[in-house]
Amino acid sequence: MAFAADEGPSATTLDMGLNALWILVAAILVLLMQGGFILLETGSTRMKNAGHVAGKTIFTVGLASLIYWAVGYGFAFGGDAGETLNKFIGMGNFFFDPSILAGEGESYPSTIFFVFQLAFAAVSLSIAWGGFAERAKLSVYLIFTVIFTAVIYPIIAHWIWGGGWLAADGSQDYAGSTVVHLTGAMAAFAATILLKPRIGKFNKDGSANEILGHNQVFTSLSVLILWVGWFGFNAGSAVSVGEGFFGYVAFTTQLGAAGGAVAALLISWLVKGKADIPTMLNGALAGLVAITASCAYVEPWAAVVIGLIAGVLVFLVAQFFEKVRVDDPISALSVHGAAGIWGTLANGFFATPKLVEQVGVGKAGLFYGGGGEQLWVQFESVVVCGAFAFAASFIVLWVVKQVIGLRVTEEQEIIGLDLSEHGNYGYPEAMKKAGNTTTSV
Amino acid sequence: MAFAADEGPSATTLDMGLNALWILVAAILVLLMQGGFILLETGSTRMKNAGHVAGKTIFTVGLASLIYWAVGYGFAFGGDAGETLNKFIGMGNFFFDPSILAGEGESYPSTIFFVFQLAFAAVSLSIAWGGFAERAKLSVYLIFTVIFTAVIYPIIAHWIWGGGWLAADGSQDYAGSTVVHLTGAMAAFAATILLKPRIGKFNKDGSANEILGHNQVFTSLSVLILWVGWFGFNAGSAVSVGEGFFGYVAFTTQLGAAGGAVAALLISWLVKGKADIPTMLNGALAGLVAITASCAYVEPWAAVVIGLIAGVLVFLVAQFFEKVRVDDPISALSVHGAAGIWGTLANGFFATPKLVEQVGVGKAGLFYGGGGEQLWVQFESVVVCGAFAFAASFIVLWVVKQVIGLRVTEEQEIIGLDLSEHGNYGYPEAMKKAGNTTTSV
Amino acid sequence: MAFAADEGPSATTLDMGLNALWILVAAILVLLMQGGFILLETGSTRMKNAGHVAGKTIFTVGLASLIYWAVGYGFAFGGDAGETLNKFIGMGNFFFDPSILAGEGESYPSTIFFVFQLAFAAVSLSIAWGGFAERAKLSVYLIFTVIFTAVIYPIIAHWIWGGGWLAADGSQDYAGSTVVHLTGAMAAFAATILLKPRIGKFNKDGSANEILGHNQVFTSLSVLILWVGWFGFNAGSAVSVGEGFFGYVAFTTQLGAAGGAVAALLISWLVKGKADIPTMLNGALAGLVAITASCAYVEPWAAVVIGLIAGVLVFLVAQFFEKVRVDDPISALSVHGAAGIWGTLANGFFATPKLVEQVGVGKAGLFYGGGGEQLWVQFESVVVCGAFAFAASFIVLWVVKQVIGLRVTEEQEIIGLDLSEHGNYGYPEAMKKAGNTTTSV
Repeated sequence: MAFAADEGPSATTLDMGLNALWILVAAILVLLMQGGFILLETGSTRMKNAGHVAGKTIFTVGLASLIYWAVGYGFAFGGDAGETLNKFIGMGNFFFDPSILAGEGESYPSTIFFVFQLAFAAVSLSIAWGGFAERAKLSVYLIFTVIFTAVIYPIIAHWIWGGGWLAADGSQDYAGSTVVHLTGAMAAFAATILLKPRIGKFNKDGSANEILGHNQVFTSLSVLILWVGWFGFNAGSAVSVGEGFFGYVAFTTQLGAAGGAVAALLISWLVKGKADIPTMLNGALAGLVAITASCAYVEPWAAVVIGLIAGVLVFLVAQFFEKVRVDDPISALSVHGAAGIWGTLANGFFATPKLVEQVGVGKAGLFYGGGGEQLWVQFESVVVCGAFAFAASFIVLWVVKQVIGLRVTEEQEIIGLDLSEHGNYGYPEAMKKAGNTTTSV
Repeated sequence: MAFAADEGPSATTLDMGLNALWILVAAILVLLMQGGFILLETGSTRMKNAGHVAGKTIFTVGLASLIYWAVGYGFAFGGDAGETLNKFIGMGNFFFDPSILAGEGESYPSTIFFVFQLAFAAVSLSIAWGGFAERAKLSVYLIFTVIFTAVIYPIIAHWIWGGGWLAADGSQDYAGSTVVHLTGAMAAFAATILLKPRIGKFNKDGSANEILGHNQVFTSLSVLILWVGWFGFNAGSAVSVGEGFFGYVAFTTQLGAAGGAVAALLISWLVKGKADIPTMLNGALAGLVAITASCAYVEPWAAVVIGLIAGVLVFLVAQFFEKVRVDDPISALSVHGAAGIWGTLANGFFATPKLVEQVGVGKAGLFYGGGGEQLWVQFESVVVCGAFAFAASFIVLWVVKQVIGLRVTEEQEIIGLDLSEHGNYGYPEAMKKAGNTTTSV
Repeated sequence: MAFAADEGPSATTLDMGLNALWILVAAILVLLMQGGFILLETGSTRMKNAGHVAGKTIFTVGLASLIYWAVGYGFAFGGDAGETLNKFIGMGNFFFDPSILAGEGESYPSTIFFVFQLAFAAVSLSIAWGGFAERAKLSVYLIFTVIFTAVIYPIIAHWIWGGGWLAADGSQDYAGSTVVHLTGAMAAFAATILLKPRIGKFNKDGSANEILGHNQVFTSLSVLILWVGWFGFNAGSAVSVGEGFFGYVAFTTQLGAAGGAVAALLISWLVKGKADIPTMLNGALAGLVAITASCAYVEPWAAVVIGLIAGVLVFLVAQFFEKVRVDDPISALSVHGAAGIWGTLANGFFATPKLVEQVGVGKAGLFYGGGGEQLWVQFESVVVCGAFAFAASFIVLWVVKQVIGLRVTEEQEIIGLDLSEHGNYGYPEAMKKAGNTTTSV
């Protein structure tokens, strides 16, 4: 007579409800991260492009949602694609039409899992925009959103999270240092190479000019919003409340972020004599990107170390790309690329047996008696996913370049994309007035 | 012996706890939407009014909270007002003094339900402010907050959600396309008619001038914040976790928003040759407004269609109001009015039998064999609620206009409401300096 | 056979899961408040310092996280420090290495409790920064973060929340009017005294100049974000879902905030003839600060009264500090100091027997037949904690002043801390251009 009808829902229904609630909250937090990207990208670029940079995110999130619903989710998590093909790509659930309630025995409703996964795809896409900033045509954003969300991202998600061949190898990427961050960064890399640097970024002698972002309040706030949203990203990836393991993931996430913020400030202070603000901010983000793969696998001290190293790395790698004349206005390559790689490899060193057992994926790392096996799998994941994301993005964008062109005209770039792509400034008063007046009719 | 004391709380208590937690999170998300309104309204207006537009929201949310606690909640959801009167208005629970814990058999604590409902009332009020922007006196904001929150909004909420006569008719408005959005838009409509257009908005020959909002980063971020908050708005309206139906609502909400964002961009691109940023942003909002009534009643493909149509509609309706010389700076009439009407009517077409059964309100729509019955109820809801909200707001504001006046003086409007109503600019440095200096002491 | 293995998790596990979920959500909300502080502090200060003020928050939150993890948490909540010492300070759990799951019988995972408490410590620290604004060296921020988070805040937290001597006395501070807000305000007070006022703030004749904050949209949005986050702060302090008491706390929190917002607007309107925006905003914050101690102990009407009084108080106290020539750019002393004291004392008047019994701490207040006993305990808490926080902060900063100096040079202060501490403006285009141009390469 336990759980008789008048005694309320069954324990399994309640457990499902708990998971459902947490995953939906997590999905909402990950969607909130788009607010962070709006501010990060806008603050890191110039006033004449501000409306364009900010506004396009709303449109691309909308378009990405439709495409992922129609196609992408089916490739990432769709049912059986046949024994051979299935290692490479999912197949099924296109135009996703889920059950309205969680089914018997399901540990969460598939509706909520969909929204959660969609939010991840949209984050990866927004990372990619870093490579397009201040010079790509609006139409290119439209086209790339479709391809990236329909095919490129879903395939990588399938490999590691959807039961594909890297999952079979035991690849450990708890919340997406590789799947989400490296993939987005590689797309950004392909874009910035094909688009070439912004006008005025590099001089003929190869030296670089600093094109300062126009609003460091926006970028600072963006980092805070991303940081907060990251709890949904990482701890949400537990997709369960259960005995509270998601709390452990939140805990290491905070430590990783903190390590990155501290290390980046100190290294820039030591090297440059001043702690420049973008480096400080990128340090926190790099800590978060790095801990994303390893948050569920490592001890607290290791989370701190992973964050600290990510903070140093982001500073050095950003300088490297500047030196080799790759224009990376939002630091997508250093923050999401380098730290994404580091975070994924870190599992190969720091994953502990106890936590590996808890998660149930892969093996312990080099420092915990696991030998080099897991490190190899992590290395393989980084190389293969990075290469695929880069190559696929490069090919798509190369074709687009041949057919319609990627970049606005020189004149349009100089007047700014707010005017060229949208017809009005995002800051019409600040841009048009001499700055000292009272009315603007 | 099941659920003996040492085995922890009962299943019904845990179920109540789950609901309580979700509804409180949803209420917090809906309150967060006020941050979206602060940015949307401010970004869509001029620098000289920025402090006023932003700051007044904090005050009006505060005042609305007190009034709704003292009076409004009692009219909306208060106990029995007698057999006849009760169809029109609730009566009871004034100066709401709830039980500190959920009572036996309650599916959530009334404290949390109150905060959730209050957050909805405050959203409707903030929509109304669109019609007051850049010219109404601060005192008018104060007076209208009191009347709207005490009487106008609660009566409509009672009709559809509080057991009133439209509820009895089976009116389907899951989360408030009509109750919240149309009501707010009609109040804005009454206000903008009585206030008349802003100085310089229309020329003597009837043609319109564009008065550009000063910050499209704010408006872009606002849409993202509103979008995120909308999951609390819509999925929170399930007021239950249960078997996960709130997840389905979140899922269709995302699709509706996406449809609106995509359609508005495409239509403005096609018609104008450039995708202007406000239209892009309003498209996403219109999709959200439209799906608000129907999120629990329609299939995924229908959610997309409802959003797409809302995106087109918001573009056309905004142009219509411009043509008939109604000044609507924040697009309250097109976004919340037109899309609110469309979203409510959409149920009459798209509501499916299975989902109607799940929710337990009204009948299936025209396309699902329901005939025109539900469509008629939806039409009735829109007409009656819209007319009541408009008439009541108009009368109140007309009286205020006769007694103390609605509008600041011409001189005050020209120097801006930051100076006239508050004594200082919201952006003192940007407004007062020639723009090129380092210190401002 | 109830809760047999195949029937899902046990009721106590589900109850733990509910608590875990709520506390983590609450912790995330409290971390989100840092976004509010970024905007509040930046908007209340000048453009030349904007990047510095905003960016340093990311760094200090990061550093505070590491220090609190390594040291502070152990002093606040660490295990037994011996019978005598334990009343003063905790001892244990340094370099916190928690269990990865909630243990048998625990009502939430210690990982999540840690993140929640860390978020509180970081809020207190960000309040303190109000006293440092626009003139302290970046290195001072670094040093003070370490000391405050390692020692000063944890000791006070231990006294009231960690089983220390004020807890033994029955001190009622539900969510930290004293522990968090007064502590932060006293640190700000010590800092502003030692730093001395900003250049140009006071004239030789003792009269004050208004140094206006540069962006009231930021400050308005900040208040909304803080308000929203405060639900995590207050209702999260229930650290339990249980029978829904956290909902009651959320309910009174909303009323307190509302009272503060309304009272501050009205008093400033009455006294000055215009409702200045910072006062309006500070009113809402003061209401929130005040209700923080009492949210779980008072009736709804009392919550409104506590908020109303806080709103008046914040206006008067800010004027007082201006008169005695204490420079308090972010109103830390009036908002967090005065309202923190008032909120703590308010329990001594308004705490009801029923709610005291519910919470299980202390006694009823003066107005509910409790005599002056609880009022005395509250008074004692305020005096002792305030004095300790002030004295400890003063000593630390005094030593720093002697050794490396607290303040940037006069020249640095005039050009702004963006340039002096970080090498670039936070708003490079707005600061460097004459304001009327299209390109900035």
